[in-house]
Amino acid sequence: MSDKMNVDALFLGPKSENQVFFKEMMDYAISEHMHWRSDFHPEDAPLMTPVTQHQPDFRDTLYRTEGILQDLSARLKTKSVPWFSPRYLGHMNADTLMVSNLAYVMTMLYNPNNCAHEASPVTTELELAAGHDLCRMFGYDVNKSWAHITSGGTVANYEGVWVARNLKTMPLAIAACEKSKDLVEGMTEHQLLNMKSKEILDLTDELKKRGIFEEVRALTARGVGVDAGKLGKFLVPRSKHYSWMKAMDVLGLGQEHIVPLDVDGNYRTDVEKMREVTFKLMEEGTPILGMVSVVGTTEEGSIDAVHEVIKLRQECEEKYGASFYVHVDAAYGGYVRSMFLDDDNQFMEYDALIERYRNDDVIPEGVVWPKRAVYDAFAAMSEADSITVDPHKVGFIQYAAGAVAMKDKRIVDLISYHAAYVFEEAGDDNEEDKQVVLGSSIMEGSKAGATAAAVWAAHRLVPLNISGYGHVIGRGIVTADWFAKKLATAEPFVVDGRRFEVRPLMHPDFHMVDFTFKEIGNDSLEAHNKLNQRIYELCSYATGRTYTKDFLTSSTSLSEEEYGQTPRLYAESRGFSDNEWNTVGSVYILRSAVMTHFLRDEIRFNNYWNNLRDVFTSLLSEIIDEENKQKLAHTAA
Amino acid sequence: MSDKMNVDALFLGPKSENQVFFKEMMDYAISEHMHWRSDFHPEDAPLMTPVTQHQPDFRDTLYRTEGILQDLSARLKTKSVPWFSPRYLGHMNADTLMVSNLAYVMTMLYNPNNCAHEASPVTTELELAAGHDLCRMFGYDVNKSWAHITSGGTVANYEGVWVARNLKTMPLAIAACEKSKDLVEGMTEHQLLNMKSKEILDLTDELKKRGIFEEVRALTARGVGVDAGKLGKFLVPRSKHYSWMKAMDVLGLGQEHIVPLDVDGNYRTDVEKMREVTFKLMEEGTPILGMVSVVGTTEEGSIDAVHEVIKLRQECEEKYGASFYVHVDAAYGGYVRSMFLDDDNQFMEYDALIERYRNDDVIPEGVVWPKRAVYDAFAAMSEADSITVDPHKVGFIQYAAGAVAMKDKRIVDLISYHAAYVFEEAGDDNEEDKQVVLGSSIMEGSKAGATAAAVWAAHRLVPLNISGYGHVIGRGIVTADWFAKKLATAEPFVVDGRRFEVRPLMHPDFHMVDFTFKEIGNDSLEAHNKLNQRIYELCSYATGRTYTKDFLTSSTSLSEEEYGQTPRLYAESRGFSDNEWNTVGSVYILRSAVMTHFLRDEIRFNNYWNNLRDVFTSLLSEIIDEENKQKLAHTAA
Repeated sequence: MSDKMNVDALFLGPKSENQVFFKEMMDYAISEHMHWRSDFHPEDAPLMTPVTQHQPDFRDTLYRTEGILQDLSARLKTKSVPWFSPRYLGHMNADTLMVSNLAYVMTMLYNPNNCAHEASPVTTELELAAGHDLCRMFGYDVNKSWAHITSGGTVANYEGVWVARNLKTMPLAIAACEKSKDLVEGMTEHQLLNMKSKEILDLTDELKKRGIFEEVRALTARGVGVDAGKLGKFLVPRSKHYSWMKAMDVLGLGQEHIVPLDVDGNYRTDVEKMREVTFKLMEEGTPILGMVSVVGTTEEGSIDAVHEVIKLRQECEEKYGASFYVHVDAAYGGYVRSMFLDDDNQFMEYDALIERYRNDDVIPEGVVWPKRAVYDAFAAMSEADSITVDPHKVGFIQYAAGAVAMKDKRIVDLISYHAAYVFEEAGDDNEEDKQVVLGSSIMEGSKAGATAAAVWAAHRLVPLNISGYGHVIGRGIVTADWFAKKLATAEPFVVDGRRFEVRPLMHPDFHMVDFTFKEIGNDSLEAHNKLNQRIYELCSYATGRTYTKDFLTSSTSLSEEEYGQTPRLYAESRGFSDNEWNTVGSVYILRSAVMTHFLRDEIRFNNYWNNLRDVFTSLLSEIIDEENKQKLAHTAA
Repeated sequence: MSDKMNVDALFLGPKSENQVFFKEMMDYAISEHMHWRSDFHPEDAPLMTPVTQHQPDFRDTLYRTEGILQDLSARLKTKSVPWFSPRYLGHMNADTLMVSNLAYVMTMLYNPNNCAHEASPVTTELELAAGHDLCRMFGYDVNKSWAHITSGGTVANYEGVWVARNLKTMPLAIAACEKSKDLVEGMTEHQLLNMKSKEILDLTDELKKRGIFEEVRALTARGVGVDAGKLGKFLVPRSKHYSWMKAMDVLGLGQEHIVPLDVDGNYRTDVEKMREVTFKLMEEGTPILGMVSVVGTTEEGSIDAVHEVIKLRQECEEKYGASFYVHVDAAYGGYVRSMFLDDDNQFMEYDALIERYRNDDVIPEGVVWPKRAVYDAFAAMSEADSITVDPHKVGFIQYAAGAVAMKDKRIVDLISYHAAYVFEEAGDDNEEDKQVVLGSSIMEGSKAGATAAAVWAAHRLVPLNISGYGHVIGRGIVTADWFAKKLATAEPFVVDGRRFEVRPLMHPDFHMVDFTFKEIGNDSLEAHNKLNQRIYELCSYATGRTYTKDFLTSSTSLSEEEYGQTPRLYAESRGFSDNEWNTVGSVYILRSAVMTHFLRDEIRFNNYWNNLRDVFTSLLSEIIDEENKQKLAHTAA
């Protein structure tokens, strides 16, 4: 038996190369369930006999079912996006793991609901196991932490804010209750609003001992509602995903209490400015409700300096006696932490890591990854209070599977609920299970147990360390590096005597490559943006069938409004004047997450690149033709 | 061709009777996708060749995949709950529609994400279409309303509270902005906090005309956060699902602002008391943030008098000039509205409805359904501001598929967001689609497009009216009626000379049948509860493999704390003294949602009942044996 995992054997493949295996397993998944049905009380009569099954209304109902599936297939084939192909480099989408697809289908037929243990005796356990895997990947103590599956990163982020908010109001509640106020005697409101997470949770242990936990909890935001102005500021990078704006709205905290943190030239949170803003709030005496660090910004794939946030918090605790909650939004980049873990799931020393990369051919000579700051950021994630991660992004699992992990599972009691019919003592003798029955401990209610099975199965087949996901994710990282370098050094594309230069926005922290085309000699930023927008349109569903496209990508617009001065730097580097920037104020970019496992082979990649050059050339040619026609029409009119 | 839909042909069946068709279609679903892959740019080289596919590490990776699926199958078979069988009468679970299972699998392979139209060009449209279906079923004007899919009823309820909350603060925001305050000139704060939903939305139209909508919106709770005490009370029936407690916490409103409404003898909201409470708040000048009506309580399947809530609101508007938001939580019962719609989706007159039931043999002579109050409640749903409904309950669709419908789609602007990369102008010429791109208009972010396909496909095959879901749901309603009658009149079970009488909690409004066993002569309520709890344990996963059980059910406990005096009435009717009730304060019941389509045949049902009598007898016998053994052990010790 070979110990080495073969990455190509994990996916159906861009040409359905593994179709024989996939079909066989799908058949297995379905047959197993069918036998389970027919073997359940074999003495029971069947509902229908072949005779009734051949009555006209019966057959017609089946035929109508078939017709609807044909209709659906036609629709899917006409307009779906071929994520599975290396020709697609856009959103964080690629082929998904066969084992997760198969596990989903198999489990879906049993239809468990992970809201209640009673409705999902199997898959609740699988969700807890998958959660353990994630906690371990993040460097959390698996006995003290917990993680669970959500529908996606947005809900995971909500849950982070939810616990942070209720935790923040707990010391005030303790002070407000006659039976507990001695625990915080002599503390000012300012001190109460600035306690460390761990200190607050230790106090809740004391409340539980006194038998007054629920009484005091009813005095937190949960019971009395939010007093938005009082709880302080929520610091989020400007690169923020819009889910943070939604979170502040939903949780009743108000968007005006977000303090946006500027980004640096790499679209990471600017550490110096973050420190300035934080110290200013500290000096003012304004509490900080929480701070968000983004590990993999949605638009640039940048990795915030989590270690600097942790360090800053410690400084604040020492200097001002004021702490704050830290949430890491690693919806995109969370699984990348597996790149740093050895086979015992220990975070590797930098030098040992690089050596391992070379030995295992994960990252070849010539590719510099990770940058030191990225390494330090991933190392520090274990210090965050909670982390969002999306298995449906870099976990290569189909939608919808998000997750949230919490460093100290006692925090769940700040938000937990019980309902007579949903919640009962789990029948097992597993103590863990008894503590964390799902529906009453999370934001959502009903949820597909099949999702838990899909994530669990992925983690069983592909370990969350260098030998598993490390190999899968490494392929994209290396390819992204090559791609960014090609873009950085590419000769201009010459079409119709006009010359177009492509350049990346920056060298990626991870595997998102942003880039734009600029016509040499044309110094209008508006024209630049229009050109790139048109390229995007021609490379997406926006202009006809994606199935006929030679290359597919995504795009976004980086504006001064959202990013401050950082996009200006890129505009400058491309030769646009200050005046141009001041007039237009945004740069339209093409955006390629390099998730594909296909191109991690130099010969293949070079062929791909050469082909892509041809594609770009013909796209530019098409755009010039369009322009010429428009000009002609304009002249004629 | 037969126009009649055959209900048995919709499901795989309790013995996998439709397995040939199901397998064929599953094969079709998968093959179609595989061809789509291999036909995409046929000129591209495959990633792997049979030679590489037969290398040891490749084969081993496949074998490991197979091993994980075998492990998963073993786990699922050991502990899953056989929802599909008529022997399961517990939670709202039964077999699910083949077409929805198949549509899910087919679509999952394309892996669309309905967060962004770009990531789901097909399934975003299917979700909008499925939403239209739901709006039409609820009697909403499909041009003015909208509905979308959520992960479940919990999130749908959150979204109802979210829009209600932000809407409630909009008039205050209008008054607070210099540019708009003329619109509410002369109005007191009390009046601002008590406006009709429609009036507020009309004002937002004016804000949009003035180009200041976003500016004013930033002054609502969304922007400035919640001031919990100010927004008034939220009225929820005592029968409330715990998601309402979670909702008040999550949305920052605080649970202490819930006013629980007492239930009547049928576990519906007590109309007289609801009116008293409401008028008292009106007299006090306390605003009502919203009122919830439950269509299908989770524990009893009771249908609140929605029409009385609508009438009450109108009275308040006329008498006090004060309105409030009305949300219907029809997570359980929403699809039942299809029972009332003719083939043109029009709500039928009562007499015509009953005649149609008889003609189509939906509800036979001798079964009285619906009660008039239930009919009126369903009729009035079209007047509610928003409605929660779970396709994964009485829509017979697999988990997780909830939904929320809003009567006036302008309300979405109170919560909508845009993110550069998620949100772009939809490419279609469909005006509807442009208005409602999903990720920015709902609470959740990423979501499986496959779920939308599953709901859409169900609605195509099974119309949301009397000819479609009416036939499917009608089967459960009739069976529930029969079951409740059998329980109400059953002769005592005689075991070992001891006699046990079974009785239903009440005759169901819908298809949830609650019941308990009582030993005749034993007047201890505690012993009664213990007996029924033990029956539940023996009929569930709590005592070993569900696969070996003869009957499976669910249970709950109805306490004075949660339900006020109503459960006492049942205890009294079973002969327990006031003293017993005052000591114990709760009654433990068995709870059977009769969803199965299997038993709607009198001969078959009578056989089933006779068999069930035997099962109950042997369960009681087993419990007596356990008791005797315990006594013996006790005596011996």
